[in-house]
Amino acid sequence: MKAILAATALGALLSLAHAAPPPRDGDWTMPAHDYASTRYSALGAIDANNVARLKVEFTFSTGIDRGQEAAPLVVGDTMYVVGPFPNPVFALDLTRPGAPLRWKYQPHPQPAAQGVACCDVVNRGGAYANGTFVFNTLDGTTIALDAATGKERWKTRMADINKGETITMAPLVVKDKVLVGNSGGEFGIRGWLAALDLADGHVVWKAYDTGPDVEVLIGPSFKPFYAGDRGKDLGVSTWPPQAWKIGGGTVWGWISYDPALNLVYYGTGNPGPWNADQRPGDNKWTSGIFARDADTGQARWFYQFSPHDLYDYDAVNENLLLDLPIGGTTRKVIVRPERNGFVYVMDRATGQVLSADPYGNNNSILRIDLRSGRPVYNAAYQPKPGRTTRGICPGSAGAKDWNPSAYSPQTGLVYIPHINLCMDVEPSEVNYIAGTPYVGTDQRMYAGPGGNRGVLTAWDPVKRKAAWEVKEDLPLWSGALATAGGLVFYGTMDGWFKAVDARTGALKWQFQTGSGIIGQPVSYRGPDGRQYIAVLSGVGGWAGAIVVGNLDPRDATGASGFVNATRDLKEKTGPGGTLYVFALPK
Amino acid sequence: MKAILAATALGALLSLAHAAPPPRDGDWTMPAHDYASTRYSALGAIDANNVARLKVEFTFSTGIDRGQEAAPLVVGDTMYVVGPFPNPVFALDLTRPGAPLRWKYQPHPQPAAQGVACCDVVNRGGAYANGTFVFNTLDGTTIALDAATGKERWKTRMADINKGETITMAPLVVKDKVLVGNSGGEFGIRGWLAALDLADGHVVWKAYDTGPDVEVLIGPSFKPFYAGDRGKDLGVSTWPPQAWKIGGGTVWGWISYDPALNLVYYGTGNPGPWNADQRPGDNKWTSGIFARDADTGQARWFYQFSPHDLYDYDAVNENLLLDLPIGGTTRKVIVRPERNGFVYVMDRATGQVLSADPYGNNNSILRIDLRSGRPVYNAAYQPKPGRTTRGICPGSAGAKDWNPSAYSPQTGLVYIPHINLCMDVEPSEVNYIAGTPYVGTDQRMYAGPGGNRGVLTAWDPVKRKAAWEVKEDLPLWSGALATAGGLVFYGTMDGWFKAVDARTGALKWQFQTGSGIIGQPVSYRGPDGRQYIAVLSGVGGWAGAIVVGNLDPRDATGASGFVNATRDLKEKTGPGGTLYVFALPK
Repeated sequence: MKAILAATALGALLSLAHAAPPPRDGDWTMPAHDYASTRYSALGAIDANNVARLKVEFTFSTGIDRGQEAAPLVVGDTMYVVGPFPNPVFALDLTRPGAPLRWKYQPHPQPAAQGVACCDVVNRGGAYANGTFVFNTLDGTTIALDAATGKERWKTRMADINKGETITMAPLVVKDKVLVGNSGGEFGIRGWLAALDLADGHVVWKAYDTGPDVEVLIGPSFKPFYAGDRGKDLGVSTWPPQAWKIGGGTVWGWISYDPALNLVYYGTGNPGPWNADQRPGDNKWTSGIFARDADTGQARWFYQFSPHDLYDYDAVNENLLLDLPIGGTTRKVIVRPERNGFVYVMDRATGQVLSADPYGNNNSILRIDLRSGRPVYNAAYQPKPGRTTRGICPGSAGAKDWNPSAYSPQTGLVYIPHINLCMDVEPSEVNYIAGTPYVGTDQRMYAGPGGNRGVLTAWDPVKRKAAWEVKEDLPLWSGALATAGGLVFYGTMDGWFKAVDARTGALKWQFQTGSGIIGQPVSYRGPDGRQYIAVLSGVGGWAGAIVVGNLDPRDATGASGFVNATRDLKEKTGPGGTLYVFALPK
Repeated sequence: MKAILAATALGALLSLAHAAPPPRDGDWTMPAHDYASTRYSALGAIDANNVARLKVEFTFSTGIDRGQEAAPLVVGDTMYVVGPFPNPVFALDLTRPGAPLRWKYQPHPQPAAQGVACCDVVNRGGAYANGTFVFNTLDGTTIALDAATGKERWKTRMADINKGETITMAPLVVKDKVLVGNSGGEFGIRGWLAALDLADGHVVWKAYDTGPDVEVLIGPSFKPFYAGDRGKDLGVSTWPPQAWKIGGGTVWGWISYDPALNLVYYGTGNPGPWNADQRPGDNKWTSGIFARDADTGQARWFYQFSPHDLYDYDAVNENLLLDLPIGGTTRKVIVRPERNGFVYVMDRATGQVLSADPYGNNNSILRIDLRSGRPVYNAAYQPKPGRTTRGICPGSAGAKDWNPSAYSPQTGLVYIPHINLCMDVEPSEVNYIAGTPYVGTDQRMYAGPGGNRGVLTAWDPVKRKAAWEVKEDLPLWSGALATAGGLVFYGTMDGWFKAVDARTGALKWQFQTGSGIIGQPVSYRGPDGRQYIAVLSGVGGWAGAIVVGNLDPRDATGASGFVNATRDLKEKTGPGGTLYVFALPK
């Protein structure tokens, strides 16, 4: 009897050892920290008074000197890091000094995926849920690992690199589903968002962003707020014949989730090709935002930020789900710092735009018509084939690209890390060849008014204006982190990791990480109870292509014109791939 | 008159701006710190009492994730870092926060050089003298740069990669000459040391390590201590006919200089091929040490540590020039922790061996006969073609490889970072084909007695015994640094950078750098007057080939048998390439 009891106890112990630890308040289990995508940490031990003493606690090399866009995740005593292609996953043991490797998982993505990655071979990280770590590989495979052991649970091939499809985004796990979308808007592919079963990886639903309603998962529950989004098969009829089949609308950015409404929110990328003359019409459902039922994928509403997009204004940016006092009542809103240069505040139940205000330099869109929901394009800056249109602001990379904002409930401010670039564009006819670039513009970008190429804007979404701004010389391509210590963290493309006062923007601390930062900072509580700040350093991505691709600074149209905007970057930073973890000295 | 004066003053100012700053006491202008190769810093602000508070001050990514074996140099307000192939040189501005790039020089070495690099594409750093920064590229070119601007002053192609020649060593500048030697002992090349004119790069003299006396620069002033080294054209007659032409004896390690004797000291590499049966004879002048006149290159003396080397015991290790109390008088000696497992103490004027004692596990050599100067080989461990000889200690990498020791005048101890590996060997016949490996053994290495693969030994060269030892699990492949703060710094192959008490070996501080350390730590005084410690992190080299070459751990004979000794390394570290600079918080 004693022996049996002992064996049972041992069994229980073993099964405990393999069970997932429950998420703790100091965990960071998804790139945006939470479903509302606030990127806010309630940890406040590191504050404006002591952050000057912040020091490197340990570092870890990913071994891949390409753009590091991922957020490191922390669950219990383990940190998870996903590297750029070939997308290794590292699990670091936070209980031991120096956080040595607990396990490493090395997938074997198809090398040819690198050839159809538009903008470096980046990866934006993974997600943790229920003992499982999920991430995507560049060649379009979603992989689930046992978070405790790194053992593969399942993998599902979702994208076809032969068509130019890749995956760079971080998945989001909602209930029992893994939400995944594709990249490749510059290759004439069709965008989609899919839900995979967390347990076995089978595809539960898949919603395309162009084409007939049945494939877009538009049905009886679809109630868009604006008339322009209502009608049958708009994903077909707002395109020239057959063009929707190669029309883009990829899903490579961020997903948010409102558990009360059971809706997921995500943006759709630019229509293809960039040369808009080849695709008359609104080009639904590109450059907009979908709200979908999390269980069925059925669309609830859609709103198009940039109908018939003229400028490669992907609409994949983050959606912050906030409850804000607007017009004397608390509204459940989405705050969206959109690539087209406007901060939108939208009712997240209906898709109504409550306000839309410019947060950067903008001349391409005069204003947003709140009645129709449509932007009023500035005819003076409409690109036309055969001529060069100069001085368009913002440039193709928008007033802000993928790198996500943070929100602090302490200040009520949204911290938007963004850019200030304008451009000259000449569109040209382009033919579709499967698996090759389908763009059709020559362009070069450069610093906008003021000369600073980066900005951190603290935006008040209620007052609809900036509280303060920090200008940065280089494009700001990292994410932001807000903490209960009254601080905002972000990184610069020349390698500085900075903490500024959340109320004033005053610089409180900075550290040189040795390579440009384009990653997403996070904060967590370590097993020892202390607060830590972590960020990946390693320049790259579209903005850093000149460095990691070793491009010629004289090629003004290189990297779709971004080379011209970062001609000096090779003199200021080099490739890298290192995780830095900071803490206050004991 | 006033105008003329002003112009003259301006001219003086300009010429000052371009003149080299004079070396300061806190500088580190050559990899070994000084001509005596002590790697000792007289800075003592960081000591055993406060080192626990040592923190990362800034970091810098070399952008190349291969083995980082260089010592960062500091001259005035500038730090110089040389990366692995393609060998960029970075000059960092220490006067500005985060030490941003002042200039970068990117040579364009022939990519094919990588194919004839035996053991990763490492570089051991540069040297500064008289306003000039000198370094070598893997493809065998010596390059001199204006240290202030990075402008190329001259370059001289010294090696021929088509024959398998490369250069990985750090040059040494002695008076107006740059001393440079070649790598490639596994490719049947002929070793040499050359002196180039610091001003214009022309070759002043070149001394081969095999062949007729006239090419070895052996003349009337050659007075070797031992009879076995005396005779005409021993570089020919101690080889089978013509074999000296492909006999190795490369110069890829360290050079020391005694200004009083005007002698330079350097070691010569293994004879080729490794299969000793193919080259009966002593194989002069391989696996030994030359003392040469610094001006003419004429040999003064030679001593052969491993005549007719049986085990790839290159003799390129560092020579510490110390004045030690031996036998009741102060002797000017060389202390040499030799690859064959013995610490030699030699009279540096004559080449006489005063003592030779084992500092690691050794069974291949029974003892050193001080009368003849010859090692007594253990016949039981003599490899023979057609059979496997097991349990040879040390293995091919020796009791210690290239990674250099440090000496503290405070303790009188030599701090030897080294390894503890044994091996099984089966030689086989090999034919010479120019530019391809010329080795002729299958072998595998593994942990020696005790199971620890690395050791830091504090050796007392007067008492001829170890004062203390620190055992390390992984092979110890980094250099050592001793400081006036009573500390010894070194790094481990799993990324720990450590400080131990110079008197006891007690661990005082450690920091996880994120990739294995095989670099050379240095200490310097910054422009702000504070003491700094710097080291490059980034695993690789022969010992780390399994990681940077992504070799299969099951291939026991991979990387000439080193894979078998570091089968677990991929689980413990990944590639990296980052400079870490540490200081006490202000």
